[in-house]
Amino acid sequence: MTEEEYMRRAIELARQGEGWCHPNPMVGAVIVRDGKIIGEGYHRKCGELHAERNAFQSLRESAEGAVLYVTLEPCCHVGRTPPCTEAIIGHKIRKVVIGSRDPNPKVHGKGAELLRRAGIEVVEDFLREECDALNDVFFHYITKRRPYVKLKYAMTADGKIATRTGASKWITGEEAREEVQRMRHACMGIMVGSGTVRKDDPMLNCRLPGGRDPVRIICDSKLSIGENSQIMRSAEQQRTIIVAACRDVDAGFESRREILEKAGAEVWNLPKQAGEGVDLNLLMEKLGEIEIDSVLLEGGGILADSALRAGIVSEVDVFTAPKIFGGRGKSPVEGEGVDLPSEAVMLTPKEVKMFGPDLFVRYSVRQTAEGSQ
Amino acid sequence: MTEEEYMRRAIELARQGEGWCHPNPMVGAVIVRDGKIIGEGYHRKCGELHAERNAFQSLRESAEGAVLYVTLEPCCHVGRTPPCTEAIIGHKIRKVVIGSRDPNPKVHGKGAELLRRAGIEVVEDFLREECDALNDVFFHYITKRRPYVKLKYAMTADGKIATRTGASKWITGEEAREEVQRMRHACMGIMVGSGTVRKDDPMLNCRLPGGRDPVRIICDSKLSIGENSQIMRSAEQQRTIIVAACRDVDAGFESRREILEKAGAEVWNLPKQAGEGVDLNLLMEKLGEIEIDSVLLEGGGILADSALRAGIVSEVDVFTAPKIFGGRGKSPVEGEGVDLPSEAVMLTPKEVKMFGPDLFVRYSVRQTAEGSQ
Repeated sequence: MTEEEYMRRAIELARQGEGWCHPNPMVGAVIVRDGKIIGEGYHRKCGELHAERNAFQSLRESAEGAVLYVTLEPCCHVGRTPPCTEAIIGHKIRKVVIGSRDPNPKVHGKGAELLRRAGIEVVEDFLREECDALNDVFFHYITKRRPYVKLKYAMTADGKIATRTGASKWITGEEAREEVQRMRHACMGIMVGSGTVRKDDPMLNCRLPGGRDPVRIICDSKLSIGENSQIMRSAEQQRTIIVAACRDVDAGFESRREILEKAGAEVWNLPKQAGEGVDLNLLMEKLGEIEIDSVLLEGGGILADSALRAGIVSEVDVFTAPKIFGGRGKSPVEGEGVDLPSEAVMLTPKEVKMFGPDLFVRYSVRQTAEGSQ
Repeated sequence: MTEEEYMRRAIELARQGEGWCHPNPMVGAVIVRDGKIIGEGYHRKCGELHAERNAFQSLRESAEGAVLYVTLEPCCHVGRTPPCTEAIIGHKIRKVVIGSRDPNPKVHGKGAELLRRAGIEVVEDFLREECDALNDVFFHYITKRRPYVKLKYAMTADGKIATRTGASKWITGEEAREEVQRMRHACMGIMVGSGTVRKDDPMLNCRLPGGRDPVRIICDSKLSIGENSQIMRSAEQQRTIIVAACRDVDAGFESRREILEKAGAEVWNLPKQAGEGVDLNLLMEKLGEIEIDSVLLEGGGILADSALRAGIVSEVDVFTAPKIFGGRGKSPVEGEGVDLPSEAVMLTPKEVKMFGPDLFVRYSVRQTAEGSQ
């Protein structure tokens, strides 16, 4: 095997932590001596051992003189677990090959430096792009302390998310719908507007066998969600945050809040954003505080528009089905919109692939001077 | 060079006829002896020599015992030019390698058969898929005698062809817009609705250096086009057909017709299609009669919807720009539309590529039992 193949194995291992290791990064590690993998590991869960330490634990022989391939710079600080650099030095590793740099200010080059000072050969930026692609979410969260928001929608080739009668089942095929379940597993939070709850009465859970349910975040400025909605009826089983934006809190509001809280939901009442609805930037800060590092924004053309214009969206994931509805069907992003093409929210295509007959494009939202991230 | 490479060279040659050889197919031919190309040619223009004969004309030595690679089955009938099979036999070619089969009922296997009977080794279906891809238009036209219609539009990643204020310049970048010019060169006709003429006042010409202008077909059921539109002011220079659907033809209609005809346009008055507008199926028949083998449908969400529902569209070409407008902007296909997702016009993705930052997807329209082609 080549060095690239060892690192790709480490990337493959890292991916196994997806959906479980948050808000920590996905990391994989492989220990190689004499052309043979003698240990491997990945970061399974926040609070448990890091990838490097899991790799050391898997050893059945000494790692003295071996090479460690790790997708992210090893940590050198005491966090929830002791620093990995110590373990690497202790195991007498000869050379460490690193993929991504750790933007966490507590590490950020200090890990590599510490290893070098201990006489270990260090190679940085090895397959860095592929390693970086694992951790868009972590890199965003660790520097901004706000969730990485993915706006996701499925539309027809003529840009509709429903027919003129409002029917939308189904736009995409099974493969694409399964990928959406994987996205739900991978994101800590899922967010929709109250209109989507009223119209679709969704569960917003993860239906993959062995998958993890995301925390549900419902933007419901008037606190109008029904107790009989599927979401409220399952609020004891799946963490649910109802986000209102009511200024004049009266007895009616308080009794609604009590009912919802009794049913198992949390109710957050936040200020309005320029008279429009929930202040989404403030909401992202609050979600960051409870360690929600990623949010899948799934429903509602109006919420999508507000989120894009508030600058909280980092990624747009579009599934396009090979069919045409025509007519005045609903569009994935509605609300106010821009007046001129030059004012559009600009994206950069990052990935194009097919899920069965459906096209998938992953875009990143371009940073602008005016404060989108 | 391998046999595949000879055939790919023939395909490359064939493409040089694009936009000029219609309504004939694009065909390329390469003559090889002792591992050396000794002749090549393509079909340049309807009425002129076929590819095989152009290849023979380019010879500087005898082709006796050589192999002919040709992208389409050689013709065996007297059309505008004498049969190519005669020339192949006359030049004592040893072996003929054929890409596409000719669906023209006058050829359709008879060309290959005739060569075999003359003792020539014939290989059929060689790189057939790639060769077939040259001639979607010809295969359609030769069997149906109606133009192959490509519906083309450019939209944002949220499915808008204009902002809420109607602004649409520009959605896509330069590379995509240049590709549209190539499409205009390649199609014999270009069709828009009268709304597009009123709103955009387009020229609908081909702005590529050395390109060919398509015949302009304006669906204008009320014969309302202005004499001062760019199209009418250039109707002497570029063939222009105004298609009306006026039932009660009065003096007003006749004087409008006279003005437009005097300005250089042709006026066709056709029956209405179910009270909606021009009968598009009848229009396609009439266009086929004047040997328009291909039509680029460029403008108007209402015309696009009518054309799709009338079943005259064979291909849908979508450019998607990496930007989001939001709001209630115009959609590429409007009109009535379908009620249920199961009634959607179904497509099959054929090609996905990038033009600069813009994504391009070419879809074919799936044949249905109810009579789309």
